[in-house]
Amino acid sequence: MKKLKRSGRLVDMTYYLLQHPHEVISLSRFSERYHSAKSSISEDLVIVKEIFEEEGYGSLLTIPGASGGVTFIPRMNNKDAAGLVDRLIQQLSDPERILPGGYLYMMDLLGNPRLMHEIGRLFASVLADKQIDAVLTVATKGIPLAYAVGHYLDVPVRIVRRDLRVMEGSMVSINYVSGSSKRVQTMTLARRSLAPGARVFVIDDFMKAGGTLKGMVDLLEEFEADLVAVGVLTESVGVEERLIDDYISITRLSEMNIRDRTIQIEAGNVLEKVKDR
Amino acid sequence: MKKLKRSGRLVDMTYYLLQHPHEVISLSRFSERYHSAKSSISEDLVIVKEIFEEEGYGSLLTIPGASGGVTFIPRMNNKDAAGLVDRLIQQLSDPERILPGGYLYMMDLLGNPRLMHEIGRLFASVLADKQIDAVLTVATKGIPLAYAVGHYLDVPVRIVRRDLRVMEGSMVSINYVSGSSKRVQTMTLARRSLAPGARVFVIDDFMKAGGTLKGMVDLLEEFEADLVAVGVLTESVGVEERLIDDYISITRLSEMNIRDRTIQIEAGNVLEKVKDR
Repeated sequence: MKKLKRSGRLVDMTYYLLQHPHEVISLSRFSERYHSAKSSISEDLVIVKEIFEEEGYGSLLTIPGASGGVTFIPRMNNKDAAGLVDRLIQQLSDPERILPGGYLYMMDLLGNPRLMHEIGRLFASVLADKQIDAVLTVATKGIPLAYAVGHYLDVPVRIVRRDLRVMEGSMVSINYVSGSSKRVQTMTLARRSLAPGARVFVIDDFMKAGGTLKGMVDLLEEFEADLVAVGVLTESVGVEERLIDDYISITRLSEMNIRDRTIQIEAGNVLEKVKDR
Repeated sequence: MKKLKRSGRLVDMTYYLLQHPHEVISLSRFSERYHSAKSSISEDLVIVKEIFEEEGYGSLLTIPGASGGVTFIPRMNNKDAAGLVDRLIQQLSDPERILPGGYLYMMDLLGNPRLMHEIGRLFASVLADKQIDAVLTVATKGIPLAYAVGHYLDVPVRIVRRDLRVMEGSMVSINYVSGSSKRVQTMTLARRSLAPGARVFVIDDFMKAGGTLKGMVDLLEEFEADLVAVGVLTESVGVEERLIDDYISITRLSEMNIRDRTIQIEAGNVLEKVKDR
């Protein structure tokens, strides 16, 4: 790269940091990239840090000194989190979304990559300090959420399957009871997907009784992996017996009357968990 | 937002543009956001544009004048594209990846959100001027690729299912013949997923005979949608009869000997399709 002025460095540095969340980047790397003294790079980083932190894009952790470096931790501030949750409530509060069995049509929202990214950033903000090693979800609808969180935390995504058309070598399967239908089902994950001791965030799009999420939590035990947190885009209240007690929800389906076609959506518990920086 | 100096504006603008690919942003919007004259904003954008285009991050299309605006089109230059393809070849050229039936274990790569994003940017670079309206894939392994492309093109992702546990209202199903197993299978997509006339990019992780991709292309006809292009992460050569002729591939499995456990991977045709800007 050719030698750049401060203005050019700031553009390139911002781009670079956004592409490398949670990665420690040494000052030398930037210094070589821009043919600039580390003291100039440090001054650049002060400017980037100020904007990122004031606007709630995330924190820039700097390790000072010649051997120092910098890490971008994506976050979302209270205001943006509340705005995102509000927009979701608006969009979900449409009686046309009512599906048989007390489910909610959400594929249009789940099919929107930008929205998924924003939700991923919100979850990643809550989880930023939890040292997550992997995100676990179940095919199919949890996948876009899992990748968005994985992107902002820079950790791999592992996908549990409910079918057996899988060719990934040795597999681990467990049976679980779907909380809603009370049917016994099977879920499967490749043996090489998770290392023992891995710290895992489990995510899905929708939680009623929580049977599927409970299945994933049980599956983690087979891998001797550690559950750090559970997240859902929407939780449904009014469930007789919930199998998962501790979770992060973005929205909450608090009422649904299939006959009258009325629906009520409110904010989940995530806003209590976002801390302003 | 408080009034910022040029240095602060450049950081914030870069962040904003990256979060809003393919969106036309008016100069007034930036002007209001930073309490700065449009002439200053225009000068900022010249700096951003120079870096983005020199480093191959993408183009910044500017519509000059008071009512003008700017659009960020993510791209990847030849050099970075070749580097990405090389890294993939290195990683895929491991005989341990050989799976029964001539398939290739790729879940570790597909499970890496950052790698998926890079591949998504490469596809989006080739497709940048094609006016894509939606990305279509089939559950499960094509999904992370589809979302990465959808993110960089800022278009929705639609997912074809092979099971029937779908509750999304009216569905369209077709039968197709899996090219490899010659079995008749069913694939399904919700009626409201695609509008007539939609311009669609179809993507999957792996193509042997191309039966699944051909199924998706046939399904598009049921929706009166238009196929713009087909993309795969890896194509397998040595297939007797290929059902899809025109496609973009990132890598190519040119030889696999299951008995001797040898494997050969080379670059796909994507590098011929990337144009330097």
